Amino acid sequence: MSVFQIGIAGLGVVGAETARQITTSYDMLSRRAGKKLKIIAVSARDEGKERGFSRDNIAFYKDPLKLLEHDDIDVIIELIGGEGGIALDLCQRALEAGKHVITANKAMIAHHGFSLSELAEENNVTIQFEAAVAGGIPAIKILREGLAGNQIDTVSGILNGTCNYILSKMTSAKNTFEEVLEEAQKKGFAEADPSVDIDGVDAAHKLAILSAIAFKQQIKFSSLSVSGIRHVSDIDINFAGKLGFCLKLLGIAKRDCSAEITMALIPSKEQLASVNGALNAVSYRGVPVESSICIGPGAGAGPTSSAVLADLIDVASGLANFAYGCPVKALSVQKLDEHNLPKQCFYLRIAVTDKPGVLSEISAILRDYKLSVASMIQNGQSDNGPVFLVLTTHKCTKKTIEAAVSKISLSEHVLDSPMLIPIYDSGSFG
Amino acid sequence: MSVFQIGIAGLGVVGAETARQITTSYDMLSRRAGKKLKIIAVSARDEGKERGFSRDNIAFYKDPLKLLEHDDIDVIIELIGGEGGIALDLCQRALEAGKHVITANKAMIAHHGFSLSELAEENNVTIQFEAAVAGGIPAIKILREGLAGNQIDTVSGILNGTCNYILSKMTSAKNTFEEVLEEAQKKGFAEADPSVDIDGVDAAHKLAILSAIAFKQQIKFSSLSVSGIRHVSDIDINFAGKLGFCLKLLGIAKRDCSAEITMALIPSKEQLASVNGALNAVSYRGVPVESSICIGPGAGAGPTSSAVLADLIDVASGLANFAYGCPVKALSVQKLDEHNLPKQCFYLRIAVTDKPGVLSEISAILRDYKLSVASMIQNGQSDNGPVFLVLTTHKCTKKTIEAAVSKISLSEHVLDSPMLIPIYDSGSFG
Repeated sequence: MSVFQIGIAGLGVVGAETARQITTSYDMLSRRAGKKLKIIAVSARDEGKERGFSRDNIAFYKDPLKLLEHDDIDVIIELIGGEGGIALDLCQRALEAGKHVITANKAMIAHHGFSLSELAEENNVTIQFEAAVAGGIPAIKILREGLAGNQIDTVSGILNGTCNYILSKMTSAKNTFEEVLEEAQKKGFAEADPSVDIDGVDAAHKLAILSAIAFKQQIKFSSLSVSGIRHVSDIDINFAGKLGFCLKLLGIAKRDCSAEITMALIPSKEQLASVNGALNAVSYRGVPVESSICIGPGAGAGPTSSAVLADLIDVASGLANFAYGCPVKALSVQKLDEHNLPKQCFYLRIAVTDKPGVLSEISAILRDYKLSVASMIQNGQSDNGPVFLVLTTHKCTKKTIEAAVSKISLSEHVLDSPMLIPIYDSGSFG
Repeated sequence: MSVFQIGIAGLGVVGAETARQITTSYDMLSRRAGKKLKIIAVSARDEGKERGFSRDNIAFYKDPLKLLEHDDIDVIIELIGGEGGIALDLCQRALEAGKHVITANKAMIAHHGFSLSELAEENNVTIQFEAAVAGGIPAIKILREGLAGNQIDTVSGILNGTCNYILSKMTSAKNTFEEVLEEAQKKGFAEADPSVDIDGVDAAHKLAILSAIAFKQQIKFSSLSVSGIRHVSDIDINFAGKLGFCLKLLGIAKRDCSAEITMALIPSKEQLASVNGALNAVSYRGVPVESSICIGPGAGAGPTSSAVLADLIDVASGLANFAYGCPVKALSVQKLDEHNLPKQCFYLRIAVTDKPGVLSEISAILRDYKLSVASMIQNGQSDNGPVFLVLTTHKCTKKTIEAAVSKISLSEHVLDSPMLIPIYDSGSFG
């Protein structure tokens, strides 16, 4: 059996677990790869730290670029992270030097995935990034290979475990966003600076990658419509529950329409609605497969290293495909156009003064925009604080409902910006 | 682009849909395979039938073996079905002639998969059978490649759409087994002779295949413990609901323990419990991935042909792996041993006469076997028909509960064979 030599850059939780698996499950992994998988060099900031694997015969560097001085390294596993900087520099140089690259770096791939893949093709090597999307779910392989015979129309899912944890906990414990975020930070489910998660950016990185593979288009990260859960209110979660929905942060990419990270209401009986806690889910809809959904842990040392190891076995055994399922030059330009979006239902919550005539005024606006109401709740009188008028619409265009909401906002009876949330069911997200 | 020539044996719903996809999505599929995918010959019983694809330049045979007379065929897609007979004969000869084989034939693979794969290896070709398990879910690829870095401990799931449809409908509509089976037959969800489905054999074929890949062992089909839903009663479905469970036909294979098709009670809040209708689900538990579950349509022309096309693209592009993830000779012998099974909880329903002392007698037997009761329901008096004593146990061995049930059966107060059903939660089935 020939030897396949590995350099690992970054020994955080995922890097250390990956190294631990490669060394402790050496026999099993080598048998599956058909080659002896041997780590010959690693890089990390802190050399002294105990990381659960033996560093015997493994060179150590503080500077990840030093890994490239090992001419005999076959693959660089990049687990440093960050959109650009040293991670990008390392990957580019590794590919130029004819070394394969495996990475879990979603920010880098969402922004530079096409150019890196092209560089790999030019140098007859491959770059693989299964671990960049939904760790424990082989989401990229399922889409690129398992569903390769399909025209995929929609790829969607719950792509950020932190947001899903927060929304699930707000729903079950009836706590506020701030309370749950603080608790999640204490438990390690949320970062000290949670912006990348709660503003939807992390989920958007993953959706951009999945969209490109699903639609075989060079999806630009900047073309995604991204919003997060920073402004979520327990008020909407409670109303959603009363109406038979639950609130999730969804990623939804529709062929030739849009790729969007948005809060959405999902009927409680749908499969996605039961995906709670820090779990991720990825749902595919296409022809001829109809639809398929996978649920699993999206982050953490174990699930993420599982994805890194799968890439490693594919690369070592020579069975790694083009990362996007075809050469980058064969990907078409991006064709997202929101005008192609199908009509859908919406949830609308309006804070109003408790005066006669308010309902009539709002109803009239909805009528003028030909918007038809599917259900409505108005909560009782309130001494302090506003009264809420909550309704769901029948299917309409996003443009129409947004125009109506603008008009409603101008009313003197409306106390705050109305909250508008799209409703998705399995028919719309696949 | 070079040409990859295809022969299809069998033009039933899956064969016809596969041919239709290959001809109508020719550009897309060929681009993804990197080769021109061209059907040059087909075989079926009835030549005249309209099947939704153009037969121009495609040779037709009634005898599938005639396909082999085309020396230039690269792959035989076998969609005839049946454990042995002409399907097996065709696949063996095709492999011997150095042609790749793709098949959806779960019975054949469950019984002859190892010898066929060995034959493929000897002839430097490959046999692939993604479509044999859970059509719309790339269940084999996920396990063999997506989770290749794991030691898989449990693979389980809902592997027969007909049974799941019947149990779901009995639960939601509160109908009897006979009523729902008749309706399923009318709707085409069940065969005129439903034995292979309702006796668990079809699910067992799939579980045998998944177990071999998961555990890298030569699992013998005859070693599976197989029972179906033929004796399911709406009485148990109703009691299960009252106790917070739902009843499913599960396939569960545990490394070094057992591979079993059995009715089981699942807590209603579990993901698998919400997999209803004709859907399939496959759940994986391993180290380091933790767990992952995929849900999708298990049968039907579209989902099954999606799996066939995925295999075709892999085979044509030269990226097809060993079917079991390693050469057959590298698979170990089967190591299933029920003595290794962990303890678990059980549901027990006993039909008893409505007399004083019955409960005391049964309680005493349970105590003698050191079985501890987790919950109990006894329904009220009944003028005609028995009274039911229904209980769930805390964790115990299967052997212990079975011995206790044998003892209970001997009581003069017990009117019928007690119904014993295992309880599985996500901790036990992964």
